[in-house]
Formats: sequence, structure tokens, C-alpha cells
Amino acid sequence: MRRKKIRKVLIANRGEIATRIIRACKELGIKTVAIYSEADSKGLWLKKADEAYMIPGDPIKAYLNFYKIVDLAKNTGADAIHPGYGFLAENADFARYCQKRGIIFIGPKPEHIELFGDKIKSKIAMREVGVPVLPGTDEPITDLEEAKKFAKKIGFPVIIKAAYGGGGRGMRIVKKEEDFEELFKSATSEAEKFFGNGAVFIEKYVENPRHIEIQVIADKYGNVVHLGERDCSIQRRHQKVIEIAPSPTLSEKVRRELYRVAVKSMFKLGYESVGTLEFLVDENDNFYFIEMNTRIQVEHPVTEMITGIDIMQRMIEIAEGKKLPFLQEEIQMRGYSIEFRINAEDPTKNFAPSPGRITSYHSPGGPGVRIDAAVYKDYIIPPYYDPMIAKLIVWALNWEQVVNRAQRSLDEFIVRGTPTNLALLRHIVRDKDFREGRFTTSYLDEKLPKFKFKREEINPEDLAVALAAAIAAYHKL
Amino acid sequence: MRRKKIRKVLIANRGEIATRIIRACKELGIKTVAIYSEADSKGLWLKKADEAYMIPGDPIKAYLNFYKIVDLAKNTGADAIHPGYGFLAENADFARYCQKRGIIFIGPKPEHIELFGDKIKSKIAMREVGVPVLPGTDEPITDLEEAKKFAKKIGFPVIIKAAYGGGGRGMRIVKKEEDFEELFKSATSEAEKFFGNGAVFIEKYVENPRHIEIQVIADKYGNVVHLGERDCSIQRRHQKVIEIAPSPTLSEKVRRELYRVAVKSMFKLGYESVGTLEFLVDENDNFYFIEMNTRIQVEHPVTEMITGIDIMQRMIEIAEGKKLPFLQEEIQMRGYSIEFRINAEDPTKNFAPSPGRITSYHSPGGPGVRIDAAVYKDYIIPPYYDPMIAKLIVWALNWEQVVNRAQRSLDEFIVRGTPTNLALLRHIVRDKDFREGRFTTSYLDEKLPKFKFKREEINPEDLAVALAAAIAAYHKL
Repeated sequence: MRRKKIRKVLIANRGEIATRIIRACKELGIKTVAIYSEADSKGLWLKKADEAYMIPGDPIKAYLNFYKIVDLAKNTGADAIHPGYGFLAENADFARYCQKRGIIFIGPKPEHIELFGDKIKSKIAMREVGVPVLPGTDEPITDLEEAKKFAKKIGFPVIIKAAYGGGGRGMRIVKKEEDFEELFKSATSEAEKFFGNGAVFIEKYVENPRHIEIQVIADKYGNVVHLGERDCSIQRRHQKVIEIAPSPTLSEKVRRELYRVAVKSMFKLGYESVGTLEFLVDENDNFYFIEMNTRIQVEHPVTEMITGIDIMQRMIEIAEGKKLPFLQEEIQMRGYSIEFRINAEDPTKNFAPSPGRITSYHSPGGPGVRIDAAVYKDYIIPPYYDPMIAKLIVWALNWEQVVNRAQRSLDEFIVRGTPTNLALLRHIVRDKDFREGRFTTSYLDEKLPKFKFKREEINPEDLAVALAAAIAAYHKL
Repeated sequence: MRRKKIRKVLIANRGEIATRIIRACKELGIKTVAIYSEADSKGLWLKKADEAYMIPGDPIKAYLNFYKIVDLAKNTGADAIHPGYGFLAENADFARYCQKRGIIFIGPKPEHIELFGDKIKSKIAMREVGVPVLPGTDEPITDLEEAKKFAKKIGFPVIIKAAYGGGGRGMRIVKKEEDFEELFKSATSEAEKFFGNGAVFIEKYVENPRHIEIQVIADKYGNVVHLGERDCSIQRRHQKVIEIAPSPTLSEKVRRELYRVAVKSMFKLGYESVGTLEFLVDENDNFYFIEMNTRIQVEHPVTEMITGIDIMQRMIEIAEGKKLPFLQEEIQMRGYSIEFRINAEDPTKNFAPSPGRITSYHSPGGPGVRIDAAVYKDYIIPPYYDPMIAKLIVWALNWEQVVNRAQRSLDEFIVRGTPTNLALLRHIVRDKDFREGRFTTSYLDEKLPKFKFKREEINPEDLAVALAAAIAAYHKL
């Protein structure tokens, strides 16, 4: 196995995750090269990196332009690229292109990125290595009788989904067998109408599931360990809002079984680097693999908090060819950790993104509080990117303490100038169901109508500052 | 035993420790009342507390005026007072006065505060409960022959100290017996000259010791546990600068023995609340008790980081009459933690205090970083108090990682407008001896002449801001 000490990493990302990667590199004695779009020229990560280069043009494409990015790595003497999450992180072609140009791609092998990028292929592959997957048709289906037979086989409720479309069109949930025919017909005709093809998939429908995911980490030598689970059930429109480690509600039986299948399947597939297996767990403790993320995840810090393991550093070392420095039995989990995504979005306007200038910024501190952020007072949040501007991660020895710490920290957090979802997060940590661990992926759908959001009062001083800044920017002062 | 749920705490302190106490109270659902001097009207802790009251007059006396403070507690309906450290924290009269007025003093019993406030009495008491103390005369001594006999008994080197004075006057270190007579005479005559009394104490002199302290915590029911040790050897003029848990150099044998005597002695004395036993450990692993601090200490966070236990919260609950919620064997230590005291002092001017306006403030974040601070951009550090303005606490799974994390975090820390000791701390974490665990209380004396400090360049913008602020203040704008 080729081993090469990484001396310089180019970070092909932005925002908080760019900062996170820079911190890991600095602690490992590795130099860093940041990139940024024109719109990101005031990004905090540029200042923290050893070097920073602008990729001109489109704000999004700057981070996707993989020829330019790899050229820059070559020209700056970087020997590796860390893709973070999003952008190029799960692009197998990019990983291959890095290899071709002699640059280490810090992540899994291209074939695994490719496999898990394909929902059907990855389901089949995982089923073959003994992981329970969500039962469903492996191929598009058009015939009613065949569909009905399949639905009966996997048991109701099932969900019918358009094979060549999305956005809820051609989608039907069927709770009882007697409704199947009617709903199948309306689904296929809607799919035909909207996507020009009436073919559908039929899948087991899991009611009120919990979203549980297992963090795995594997080196190039076949050593695979898990770092426990995260409960990411608190979601809004399939976007995670709060992530928890360990799950406060998972039974010990399911937990052990999830760990077992996660490690075994990754070992069998020869996976390397970090990765996350996502599962749905139903009310009867059945669990189903839904997908695997072949990258570092937004929510990795909660796992770092309970295990004490720096996942980002270990990910870089694996790419260098180092062996995992711990055995499974040496990994100790302690306490509970919760991550809150602080998004620049307006709860009074149905969570519309709210880019703009931060006129006041004060993050919480003290015991058990970690902040992963890349914003500051007077930073202008650009409108082009994900609205997540900071992550608040809290830790405490037990569930009650961590929820109290979360409440205290969220109350301390001050972001002014532009609306954020802090008000939503403050509602959640005060909610009895959340505090008592009663939540599934339906939690926010049920709770949102009950939470009241006030329009944040705009401080006249903030307004004056924002106005002055806008005028100055206009005149290029 | 009387048990009373505390509903509101008055915090008889300022700065970072006031903030720390407020955070603990909030997480326990306890209301808080802050106090402040006129000079402290911009303190961050005032904003974090539920109520805040100014104690007019002298900046220092405001925090010492115990009649006013207890009156305020009564008038605001507070049922307890937390004294923090310094000011009234180790004032037995204050603790008694609180009791008398029906206010819970969050700390040890007055008799223990009193006992450990007396260096000679506490040494005798500790010796009686089996703790090795620094051998020394229990009473002032004037007779040469008697003194010499005592010195020979405890063995050279010894230190002669003026009994009724300090500041190094009348102090002599005697390394060999043949020098004793001459040095004793010069010490007593110097003591006579400066303090009007030639009497001296003679004590064992420990060369190049390590300063090791044991954190204990005890409830009202005789349950005593230790929370491990801290190594506080890195000191400048007997002021701790860096504190570490656990000690990276202590032998397992000494560690166990220190834990054993700490718990046993506190149990025998019937101590309650939190406390710290300070020891000197010599090069041959002999250890000597030197003093006990009957309060929460500045450096308590490093112990919180390795044990996961919130010492401040448990201290408050003990005062309420709660039992310790853990047994000794349930306390798990994990990894290493280092605390750095960020002081407003100028390394280029022999560390003279440097109060003034902070024009730029950016604290580090990310994994394993905790900030306990009470400062912010545009805060003016008043000249009246301890120059410590913030504490950076880092944690990682092993010593090498924690030192790298310390270096990374110190490099991220930005405080502009007024000099700080950050440059000193950055030198230390890069020093080979420190990184390899070779340090005793002499460390900084030896290293300081070798560290180079540049006068920080003053940013013209900072100067303009400071100037404008000074003019505005002058005109009371």
C-alpha cells in the first residue's frame, strides 16, 4: 500500500466546513489552501488558511469547477484535496480526476461513491451483504396485478412513487389492500401526465419512523469500526435541523443490531474513509437501510463529542495511508450531544432564506459548548449558498443536562441584522415531547403550527448600519 | 439535614466567573442576581443575569461590602449567594453572616474556611489526618541552635522565612549545613529591620517541584470523592498561567497516593462543598501538602473537561442539600485538558497590566475548545481588577493532540486594542520542553529570558477608534 504524508491540503469548500477542515489540518501540522468565489471574498476561512485563491465567475460553479480546482492544487503544491460535504464531495468523477492528476482525494474510493450515488444499486448491494433494506421494487413497474402482488408481499402500508419524477407527483400512500387498485391507477396516470412515463416504484411505507444513522470509519487495511449512532429525526422538509448522539430512544437491541450490520457490510464491501449509513426505524423496532453518505457529514461533531475522536483528522490520516489508531473496544462513548443548525432563514416567512449583514454576533461559551461557524459581526451572508451559518453543538453527561445546556446556550446566542431559525430551536428545546424524547420524522410537521414566531424587532441602529453599508457598497467606498 | 431548593442565586463576583456561575444556574433552572461596581457597568455578566444591581462607590469594595450584598440578596428574594473566587470566597465571617441572615452560602462550612485560611493551623490539622505536609517549624523561632537542630532534622535544603513579613525580605535558601549559621543571622537581622521582629519559620525547601493539586467534592452526608489532579507548575511569580489535567508527568504511584490522602483527609475533617488540596511534588516523587483552597478555582474547567462533571452545578446542589450523584468508581477520566489564562498584560513591559479598550475580539472554536470569558469587542477592561480577561480551555484524547489543539486555538485567538499575554502562551506551546512534559515551577523563570516578544503593532484604525472613544468619554457623549 502506497503511503504518503500529506503536507498541504486544498479545501474545495466554503463556510463552516472549510474552517473545520483547516482546524484539523493545523492540528496535524498540514498547510492549507483555501478557495473562494468572488461572492465569498469576506469568508472567514480565507483568513484561517495559509493561502487562499479566488475562482472567478459564478458563485456556485466556483466550487464545482474541478479542472480549475485540481490545477490550483498542482500549482500551489497541495498533495491532497478535501471536498467537505456538498459540491464535489460525492462526485466519483472528481475523485477519479484527482487520482489521475496525482492528487490524493480525501474520501472513499470512487467506486463506492458511485455505488452509493445510485439508490437502487446501493440497496441491492447492501441487501446482498446482509443489511435490511426498505423492501421495494428493484425496477420500475407498470402492471397493476404485478404491483398488487408485490405490495401484498411486503405488506401495507406501501408507497407508490413515480419512477421518472419527483416532487410528490405520482406519489400515493396506500394503507389498505382494498385501496390499492384505485390509488395505483391515479398514481400511474399522474406520472404519465407529468413525466411522460407512468412507471412507478413500490416501496414499504414506514409510518412515523426515526431517522437513525451509523457513523463508520475504515482504513485502507480492512479495519472498520463504528462510532455509534445519531438520531436525526428532527427535520423540516427532509432537511435535518437537530442531530443527537446517541439516540435517547433507541432500544439496546436495535442499537447493537445496527452497529453489527454497519460494520459487517462496510467490511464486506471494502469501504474506506468515513461514511454514514442512514436507516429508518419504525415503531416496532424494525429498521431499514435507506442510503449511505460517502463523505464527512454536517452532523459529525456530535459523534466527536461523545467519542472524543476527531473524525476529520482521522479521515485525513486514512487518506495518507495510516492505520486506524483505535480498536472498536477502545472507543468509549460518554454522555449526550446535540447539534443545532443555525440557519439564516425567517421563521415568520415560512423559513425563507434570509441572507444579509450580521450586525451583531455573540456566540455562547462555557462548559459543554462547541461552535463550528464561519461568520462574524458585519459579515454579509451571501444569497447563493445553503443558509446554514453556524452549528451549535452541546454536550453533557446525561440527556436532561444536555437539554438544559442546549436551552441555556440557545438563549445566549445573539445574531442580529438578519433573521435566523434560533426562535424555532428555542421552541423545540422547551417542548415537552422533545425533552422527553418523543419525536419521529413527523415531529416538526406536527409542532410547527403550534410554535408562534414573532417578527424580530429591527433595531434602528442595525437598520442605520445596514443602510450605510448598502450606500457605501453602492458607491464602492 | 435541612434541604432547601435554591430558586435564586446572587452572584457576589464579576467577570468570567460571574458568567460561569450564571450559566450553571440557568442550566439548573435557578434565577440569578448579578452585582457590579460603577466601573463594571459594561460587564457582560450583567446582561446574562436575570437582574443586576450596582453597588456604588469604590470599584473593589463594591464586591467586598458584605452587608450591602446580603441586604441585596434579601431584598431581591435570593436564597443563596455564590462567592466565586477571590473577594469574599474565603471569608469565614461572610459565610457566617450569610447563615445568620438565612441565606445559603454556596461553599464550605465557615470553620473549614477559617482553618484553611491559617497556614500553620491547617498544616497541623492535615498532618494529624495523615497528609504529608511540608516539614517546618510550627511556631516562629529566634534561637540559632534550636533552628539549626530543626534544619538538620528535616534535612537540607531548607528555607528560612520571616514569620511576620513577606515579599522575599528575611528569606534565605540554605543548601548546606555549613552555610546555615551565616544565613540564619542575616535572615533574622533583615526580618528585624523590616518587620520589627526577627522571628522566622524554617521549612523544607523543595527544589524544582511540580505544583500538583487534587480537586475534591463532598456533600453534607459524608460522601467525598476526588476528581483527579491538575498540574499547575507553569507559573509566573507564583501566579498560575497554565493548568493541565491530568498531569502528563506524574507517576501512577504518586497519583494514587495523592488521591488516597485527599479523600481520606477530607472525610476525616468532615469537609463539604468543593475544594482543592495543593501539593508540591519533588524530583524523587516525595509530595508535601502546602495549602487548601476552600472555593471553586479558576482552573476548575480542565477537571470538568476530563471528567465530564459540571463542578459548578454540583457545588450549588450540595449547598441545597443534595447528595453527590456519583460514586468514585463511576467517575471516568478521559483525555487531557489544558487551560490558558488570557491576561491583559504586556509581555514587552514585564507583564504590566494593560487595561483598555478591546477593539477586535475573535475567540477560537471548533472541536475540543471551550471559552470562559466575559469580554467582547469594544469592552473596556477596567484597571482595578485581576488582568485575567478570558480562559481558553482545550481538550483532546491524548497529550500530543491536546498540545497541537492548544497551538491551533491560541493562533486563532485575536484580541486587539490592548496587549495580552497571548504571545507568551504561543511561545510555551511551541517549546520542546513543554511539549515533552518537562516542566516544574521553575519553568517560566528559565524560559522567559529566551522568549522574544515583539511590541504589537498598533493598527492605525484601532488607534483612531480608541481616540474617538476617549474623546467621547471625556465629553460624556
